[in-house]
Amino acid sequence: MFLQVVLAERDPHPYYVATAKGSYITDIEGVERIDFANNMASLIHGHSHPAIVEAVTDQLRKGTAFTMGTEAEVDFAELMIARSETFERMRFVNSGTEAVMTMLKTARVYTNRPKIAKAEGAYHGTYDYAELSQTSNPSNWGDINKPNVNRVVDGTPQGVIDDVVVFPFNDIERTLKILDEHAHEIACVLIDPVPHRIGLFPATNEFVEAVYNWTRKNGALMVFDEVVTYRVNYAGAQECYTVKPDLTAIGKMIGGGFPIGALAGKREIMEVLDPRGKILRHPHSGTFSANPISMTAGRVAMELFDEKAVLDLNALTDIAISQITESIKIADVPVSITGEGSMFRLHLQANEPTCYREAYHTDEKKFLIKELLDYLFLKENIIMINTGACMFATTITQKEVDRLSEALLNGFKLIKPKLEKLSHSLV
Amino acid sequence: MFLQVVLAERDPHPYYVATAKGSYITDIEGVERIDFANNMASLIHGHSHPAIVEAVTDQLRKGTAFTMGTEAEVDFAELMIARSETFERMRFVNSGTEAVMTMLKTARVYTNRPKIAKAEGAYHGTYDYAELSQTSNPSNWGDINKPNVNRVVDGTPQGVIDDVVVFPFNDIERTLKILDEHAHEIACVLIDPVPHRIGLFPATNEFVEAVYNWTRKNGALMVFDEVVTYRVNYAGAQECYTVKPDLTAIGKMIGGGFPIGALAGKREIMEVLDPRGKILRHPHSGTFSANPISMTAGRVAMELFDEKAVLDLNALTDIAISQITESIKIADVPVSITGEGSMFRLHLQANEPTCYREAYHTDEKKFLIKELLDYLFLKENIIMINTGACMFATTITQKEVDRLSEALLNGFKLIKPKLEKLSHSLV
Repeated sequence: MFLQVVLAERDPHPYYVATAKGSYITDIEGVERIDFANNMASLIHGHSHPAIVEAVTDQLRKGTAFTMGTEAEVDFAELMIARSETFERMRFVNSGTEAVMTMLKTARVYTNRPKIAKAEGAYHGTYDYAELSQTSNPSNWGDINKPNVNRVVDGTPQGVIDDVVVFPFNDIERTLKILDEHAHEIACVLIDPVPHRIGLFPATNEFVEAVYNWTRKNGALMVFDEVVTYRVNYAGAQECYTVKPDLTAIGKMIGGGFPIGALAGKREIMEVLDPRGKILRHPHSGTFSANPISMTAGRVAMELFDEKAVLDLNALTDIAISQITESIKIADVPVSITGEGSMFRLHLQANEPTCYREAYHTDEKKFLIKELLDYLFLKENIIMINTGACMFATTITQKEVDRLSEALLNGFKLIKPKLEKLSHSLV
Repeated sequence: MFLQVVLAERDPHPYYVATAKGSYITDIEGVERIDFANNMASLIHGHSHPAIVEAVTDQLRKGTAFTMGTEAEVDFAELMIARSETFERMRFVNSGTEAVMTMLKTARVYTNRPKIAKAEGAYHGTYDYAELSQTSNPSNWGDINKPNVNRVVDGTPQGVIDDVVVFPFNDIERTLKILDEHAHEIACVLIDPVPHRIGLFPATNEFVEAVYNWTRKNGALMVFDEVVTYRVNYAGAQECYTVKPDLTAIGKMIGGGFPIGALAGKREIMEVLDPRGKILRHPHSGTFSANPISMTAGRVAMELFDEKAVLDLNALTDIAISQITESIKIADVPVSITGEGSMFRLHLQANEPTCYREAYHTDEKKFLIKELLDYLFLKENIIMINTGACMFATTITQKEVDRLSEALLNGFKLIKPKLEKLSHSLV
């Protein structure tokens, strides 16, 4: 009953932010909350980090956007190129959506092939070819041996559907069989190495190796969407794998809190974007791309997120996962937790999901996670991402972790009867 | 000979900006230049406008990006909705490319149709469906009665080509005939009312009316790309027409120098994006979309660009066009000039172009305009857009206009022999 009132309160009128500092957001009613969403993983140093505010304030007085280049873009590109061995050349854009779109188009230009292969359920932004089957559900996802390619929105042309190949993440046998059917038409296989919407668990090294070997044999590229996952290690989630992507899309935290996206990768592929080449195969520009504000904020953020900062943040996240696992045990609820690096996600099921279809939120599950998160937001003053995920920032300390695991314990107890009912209905 | 040296100097190494203020940019060598490009039309108040710097500095301390909303987005949306009568609802994104993509997808969702119609040569950003035929040239543009739908980049799927319809801008008879061939499949007809790359001259009222009436009869939408042209009048270039677009994409100057794009239009169409609806037909989100920095800078910029500021800027631009026309006469060169509002473009031909094919830059023309602009940049310290266009800002005064017309006079005299040779070769 209480939660019904709560839901009515938060819907349809959202809460608005007044100010934010570090890991704390104060809304326009004056209520302060701990922020574990960090603008969907884009604020690796929380809100209003002093070093970023200072650098941006300085750049503001010099100008924010030019038809000409700035040293800020060169400095930032050099920093990132030194950071990840697969980043031989870089191109900046304004969002993750633009980064993935530019990456897929670049793969098509380089290979002169039309098709894109992607994992069922993976979110890669709003470009048509990247979004298909991102919201597949039991009524339309079809046979796992050959998942259906489903529209996210009405009116998506049939041509888009015909040029997208959907495979089940981490399922080597099925994936290779599906890819084989389109061997000579696939420009690239797109992989998010720790896909949030699929369940926030990593691609296995065996899976990435199998995809990589397939692309080598078949003249295709293997490209990574690391817009979210670049935070996992100093040089991105790709650091974990024995084989590396040809191209990588990044974004989110690399903007230091300002709009950004970027494409990085092998020199010989990135050369299609080079206006100094004999033929410019992929003409590509953007009014705000590589603007000195995003470049400056991003450079400072990435300098601060050095190897030690990455390891410390991952260690604190591990502690949080342990404590929440303990909360789950104490509350004795059918909840599991997955994650990698400084990210984790709760699942309202006893066993960790191993694929999109296992992690899929039915309406009942969706409603229950909303109840839990509304309780956290309104009664515990804690902000999580609406899937039940947390994306940590370096401003989070043991104090906030303790509040989180305590609040979750209270939340689990509150929804325990419904959780158990849900759990039984799934058996 | 001199110009050969000049070209070698500027290519392949570009010049980099150190600082900018108002209409002046100082590069890292300490050279100051007058900026008539204004970051490709995005800086309506020039660089580092004090009111924008102040408002952004204030917002910076409060945070730059949140998972939650802010009042900054509500304030800005309300301002824009009050400004243009066709803006009943608004949705913010991060760039013009994203604005056009979101608009085309929304038109598809609303009509449940796949095809997009666009004008040959028009630039609408880098989304595949928006970019086709933007670089058509004499070797591939085909019969004007049915212009070819051409790839801009290799690997663009055939499906994209099949779902784009290309018409000749301002040509009513041919356009309607072409549209008729796809009457039941067209989601929207996309129009830039003053398309820069086509030649920077306005769509005629008759043309817009004809397209509008066609869309009413055939269940399609008429949508405007006003990313560049919103500056033309207080309520956009659309203010000039007796009929109005269903949806409008805006961007550039509405961000006050920060990354932005927006989609605005009729309530019943925009409702497909409303998450509070019974069915969310067009799920659409973006990490940095509606971030409070772009919202704050944009609001201040648009408040300052009030009705009087628009009229004053357009009047100064008219003076500039008159003075440059005088320079053309004095130099006695085959050059013409087109424009609208606070924008104009030079054409290295005696007669103003009336269509894309007439304004098209052959290699000879491209080289000559580059010579002229390199001369202006390096010897007169004046920055123009590489097509030969200027996009004025409110920081430009009569003094800068005088420098521009004087510098162009010098430039015209310098390239006169080549201009005349080019002119003869075209006869």
